Amino acid sequence: MKIGITGTGSHIPSLVTKNEDFLEHEFLEADGSSFHQDNAVTIEKFKAITGIQERRYADPDLKTSDLGFIAAEEALVDAKVDKETLDYIIFAHNFGDMTYGKIQGDTLPSLATRVKHLLQIKNPSCVAYDLIFGCPGWIEGTIQAHAFIKSGMAKKCLVIGGETLSRVVDHHDRDSMIFSDGAGATIIEANPDSGEILSHVSATYANEEAYYLYFDKTNSAQGCTDTRYIKMQGRKIYEFACTHVPQAMKDCLDQSGIGIDELKKIFIHQANEKMDEAIVKRFYRLYGKEVPENIMPMSIQKLGNSSVATVPTLYDMVLKGELPQHRLKKGDVVIFASVGAGMNINAIAYRY
Amino acid sequence: MKIGITGTGSHIPSLVTKNEDFLEHEFLEADGSSFHQDNAVTIEKFKAITGIQERRYADPDLKTSDLGFIAAEEALVDAKVDKETLDYIIFAHNFGDMTYGKIQGDTLPSLATRVKHLLQIKNPSCVAYDLIFGCPGWIEGTIQAHAFIKSGMAKKCLVIGGETLSRVVDHHDRDSMIFSDGAGATIIEANPDSGEILSHVSATYANEEAYYLYFDKTNSAQGCTDTRYIKMQGRKIYEFACTHVPQAMKDCLDQSGIGIDELKKIFIHQANEKMDEAIVKRFYRLYGKEVPENIMPMSIQKLGNSSVATVPTLYDMVLKGELPQHRLKKGDVVIFASVGAGMNINAIAYRY
Repeated sequence: MKIGITGTGSHIPSLVTKNEDFLEHEFLEADGSSFHQDNAVTIEKFKAITGIQERRYADPDLKTSDLGFIAAEEALVDAKVDKETLDYIIFAHNFGDMTYGKIQGDTLPSLATRVKHLLQIKNPSCVAYDLIFGCPGWIEGTIQAHAFIKSGMAKKCLVIGGETLSRVVDHHDRDSMIFSDGAGATIIEANPDSGEILSHVSATYANEEAYYLYFDKTNSAQGCTDTRYIKMQGRKIYEFACTHVPQAMKDCLDQSGIGIDELKKIFIHQANEKMDEAIVKRFYRLYGKEVPENIMPMSIQKLGNSSVATVPTLYDMVLKGELPQHRLKKGDVVIFASVGAGMNINAIAYRY
Repeated sequence: MKIGITGTGSHIPSLVTKNEDFLEHEFLEADGSSFHQDNAVTIEKFKAITGIQERRYADPDLKTSDLGFIAAEEALVDAKVDKETLDYIIFAHNFGDMTYGKIQGDTLPSLATRVKHLLQIKNPSCVAYDLIFGCPGWIEGTIQAHAFIKSGMAKKCLVIGGETLSRVVDHHDRDSMIFSDGAGATIIEANPDSGEILSHVSATYANEEAYYLYFDKTNSAQGCTDTRYIKMQGRKIYEFACTHVPQAMKDCLDQSGIGIDELKKIFIHQANEKMDEAIVKRFYRLYGKEVPENIMPMSIQKLGNSSVATVPTLYDMVLKGELPQHRLKKGDVVIFASVGAGMNINAIAYRY
């Protein structure tokens, strides 16, 4: 039984924030002390490492579930699937629905229920739940959908990754420049004409790594200590990812039985350009190979890091021809891979 | 392959809040107007409907993930499972870790990661994720664990349901008296000596029902409108549950091939005593039967409604002999059933 992706959709918010828009920000060290560097220099260094030139923020009227709904509608049309035939709606996110300007996430009801509500699906057998697995949430949701289909519990699943990180960033933390908003959605089904999930791996590192990404107060001594924001130990995440992600990708590809030379594209979580390049370089090194040209589509330069949304959005962009130097043809093998809060890592080897 | 529960554990918080403790509360209508009734009368009516005499609140130093960790440790010992052999930790909750006295839930990292961290599990292949499915989250997590084992992705799973609802209640809302804190945990595995999941059903009703349980501001005009609390349309939930849960339970039992007379116990979400009794009465009526004596263990009188925690906690209490009038012997068939935010409904027919 071939289980694969039969439709994709995404919502890329229209509000563009450029690096220059951070020139007047007051960046502070974690201890609240002044950051002894010109913002222009900080931004230049930031851009050199992350590759980010600009990022997208959601319209203030829209919440994460709304972004997911827009992406889901597009994926349903793309897959030519009757929404009433869906067995599952799986929504991967990290913070729930954040109202613009507020600090409290809302997961009552789940975001998957909200999407089902907005899609006006009547069939009660379409089970809607949320999945929290850090940035690798969309890949993990796809793996779960695959398990449900394989075990006979489902035939068609809608898997969404959506986030509005712009609403949980500390504006006094230079890492705030990384994060962005967006949503991607896919339809997963057993279908002789679809692509095929060939293999997958997942892992959670929860010892000293558990709190590399965490929730904490603002860097500003003036800020409210009750309010918490997304925080990260960037250097440690970088080292962790470069150490563990390449091997996970290799384990996944080897499990699929596909040789490294047959691999056509790597859709990796858009976390940081330099980090992603280092991961892919080490991945090929595990096979004693150099990185081939044009193997890794990237969207981070223009879209930033929208957590769970980056991989499905990037895949959708390539399939819709929005990154013309990257094309897939029937039968091509690709890898989806991600790393994030947990610390979680996962990968899927996929035949398009 | 028999897939069943090989160990159970729970954490029942030690702080007891009795109905009398609400005598001095200022209950208000949703529009902020005064509630024209003596608190003593309100409490008496409340007790008559819900059956709740007292409820448990978590120690202020503990968060939901801590309660889940304590329950998980107990379940691992009970199942005689080496923690390093777990393939999954699935944590069902609704609001993340709530710090006592704060309003912002924390899901970075996931609560499942926090439990893995506290259990000091080193094996990265033990995948830890959170599931949001309202009160039926523990049952749904068990169904997901079952799917992973059935599809060959896992052998042993830890499924936790934990919540600290005392930290998201509006003290000006009389419904606040319903909610409580707690955690239950179970080990699910394929094991010839374990019990067996015979069948299961799940459903999400997301049309007019989607917001029967929701997040909203306090009833008090003095309160901060930015802060939101768990709110419910009690009457609508009651009608919804009585209409849909009995049929879901019947569908599940019929799927298992077990006759109604063979059913020994019903472990139903401890939402409201009168509602649970009405559901079970209608369930038996679907078979043209009267409700047998002692079919439904209840803990709500002393523990309140701790959301995802009620079913695994209740099951653990019965197995550990804490409800002496309810005993199970090898081979007995029981039903687990739940209903809650989503609106979600699910049930499992289970041979002990």
